[in-house]
Amino acid sequence: MNKKIEYISRLLKKMSSKGLEIYVISRIWHLLDNDEVKIVPQQYVRHSDGTYSLTDLYFPQFDFHVEVNEPGHYITQEKISSDALREKNIVESSGHHVKVINCTESIENIHLQIDAVIRDITAAIDLQKREKTFKPWNPEFEYKAEFYKNLTELKVAENIALETIEQICELFNVKVPKMGYLRKGAAPFPPMENTILWWPSDYNRNWENKISPDSLTITERAVNEKNPGDHAFGVLNNPHNRVTFFKDRDILGYTYYRFKGVFQLDMSRSNKVDGLFWVRVSDFVRIKF
Amino acid sequence: MNKKIEYISRLLKKMSSKGLEIYVISRIWHLLDNDEVKIVPQQYVRHSDGTYSLTDLYFPQFDFHVEVNEPGHYITQEKISSDALREKNIVESSGHHVKVINCTESIENIHLQIDAVIRDITAAIDLQKREKTFKPWNPEFEYKAEFYKNLTELKVAENIALETIEQICELFNVKVPKMGYLRKGAAPFPPMENTILWWPSDYNRNWENKISPDSLTITERAVNEKNPGDHAFGVLNNPHNRVTFFKDRDILGYTYYRFKGVFQLDMSRSNKVDGLFWVRVSDFVRIKF
Repeated sequence: MNKKIEYISRLLKKMSSKGLEIYVISRIWHLLDNDEVKIVPQQYVRHSDGTYSLTDLYFPQFDFHVEVNEPGHYITQEKISSDALREKNIVESSGHHVKVINCTESIENIHLQIDAVIRDITAAIDLQKREKTFKPWNPEFEYKAEFYKNLTELKVAENIALETIEQICELFNVKVPKMGYLRKGAAPFPPMENTILWWPSDYNRNWENKISPDSLTITERAVNEKNPGDHAFGVLNNPHNRVTFFKDRDILGYTYYRFKGVFQLDMSRSNKVDGLFWVRVSDFVRIKF
Repeated sequence: MNKKIEYISRLLKKMSSKGLEIYVISRIWHLLDNDEVKIVPQQYVRHSDGTYSLTDLYFPQFDFHVEVNEPGHYITQEKISSDALREKNIVESSGHHVKVINCTESIENIHLQIDAVIRDITAAIDLQKREKTFKPWNPEFEYKAEFYKNLTELKVAENIALETIEQICELFNVKVPKMGYLRKGAAPFPPMENTILWWPSDYNRNWENKISPDSLTITERAVNEKNPGDHAFGVLNNPHNRVTFFKDRDILGYTYYRFKGVFQLDMSRSNKVDGLFWVRVSDFVRIKF
C-alpha cells in the first residue's frame, strides 16, 4: 500500500472522534492536492514561556499550524494533562504561524477560510522552492539514515526519527553492536569524548525507561537484575553522555526511534535504588567530523 | 451547525473504521466541491434477482454508486447477513451505475480514478440541469412535507423520509390524531377506501413492531395488554390496508419516518398470539386526489 495514502487515511481516522475536524482537515488535504506536503495531527507545541498548546494540524515543512475551532474547543494549558502529553511529539515553537478555522460559520464561509489556508501554504511552498529550501514529504525515506546523510548536525526541533537501530548506527557510521544473538542497547561513539549512542524504549522486559512529557529528562532502571542496582552502580562509576534516540509510538500508531538530544547523567539524583536520571544538555549533535 | 457540513462529517466518521475508504470518499466530496449533491454511505441495493449488494457510496440523485475496492473487500451475498441488513435502507436497483475505485494502485492512479468519478457526476449534473430534472440536495427541507407537496405520488424507490408525525399528516392533508395527551399511532385516510396512515417504530414500550430486512413484511404485536390479543382481535375483525412510514435510525444515526409502501393484512398468518403480519402490496401511494 502506498505509504502516503495510508498515512493520510490513518490521520483522518484519528480525526474522526471530533466533530467537524475531519471535514476541515480532509478538505485542506484534498484541495491543497500536493502530496509533497506533509501534515501531522494533534501537534503539541512548547512555547518559549514553557506552556504548551495543542493544535489540530501541523505542517512541519512550514512551521504552520491550523486549529479547527468548534464549540467546546480548548487550547488551555490546564486541560492538557501530563498524561495527554506523554508519548506525544512536541515541537519547540515561537515564530510558528497558527491559523484558526471558525466552524460556527456557514459552509460557504468555512470553505472560504480553508481556501485562505491553502493560499498560505501554496505561497510558503513557492517561497521555499524559489529559495531552494523546499524538502518534499518523503515517507519512504525520511525514516532512513540516507535521508539525513547530507546534514552536519541533527536538531531536536527537526523531529528526526529513524525506523531501526541499524539506521541509527548507519547515520553515525558505527557498527551495530551485538551481544551474542542480541543487539545491545547502546553503541560506542568514538568521535565524541566520553559519549555513547543510546536507543532506549519505554517498554522492555529488562528495563524501565521513561521520558518526561517535555522530553528533557529520562529515567533508566534495570529490572530483574541478579544483583539489583548492578547496572546503576556501573554507570555511576563511569559517568558519560548519551546521544539519545527514544523509541516511541506516535499518535498515528507508527513506531520510530526519535532523536531527543544529548543527555548527561544527573549524579545528584541517580542511585542504585531509584535508577539513573539523565538530563538533556544539548538539543543537537554533530554527525560530521 | 450547518446541516450539510454536519452530515458529511458524520458520514466521514462512519467511513473511518475501514482502511482507505475515508481517503477516497473525502476526496470525492471535496474535489466535486458541490454541496447541491447528496452522498449516502454504505448503501444496500436490491437487484432484480432478489440478491443484495453493499456499495460504499451512493449518489441518490443519479442512481450512481462507488465501491472502494481494498484488499479484503467483499460484496458477496453470503457475507451480508440479515443482521447487517436490518435497519439499513435499501434501494431497488437495476440500471444503477457502479464505479469501482481500485485501491491497490499508486496514489497518482487512485487520484486519476477519483477524477473520473467526478467527471461522471459532473456530466450527470449537467444533463439533469439541461433537462431541468436536477433537485439540489436540501437537508433543511427534504424531511418536511412541503418538499413533496408537488408530487402526485410517493414511491418507495425514492427513499422518502419525514422527520415527524405532524409532517406525515400535513403531506396527506389529514389532522394529527390525538388520544388525550398522546398522539395515536395511525390516522384515518378518507381518500383511499379501507386504508389508514400508519407510523410504527421498532421500539415502543407498548408495541413490538419489526420490519423484515427486505422491507416487504412488517409484524405488529401489542405487549402489556390488559387482555392479551385484544388489539389483534380488533384488527382481524376489521381488516384494512395501511400506508406505512416506518420509524428507523439510519446508518448515520438520524431518525426519520421512512415511506415503506402500502401494506395489507395477511389473514392467513395473523392471530392473537403471534400478532399481525402485514405484507407490502404497493410500492407507491397517491397523495393528490
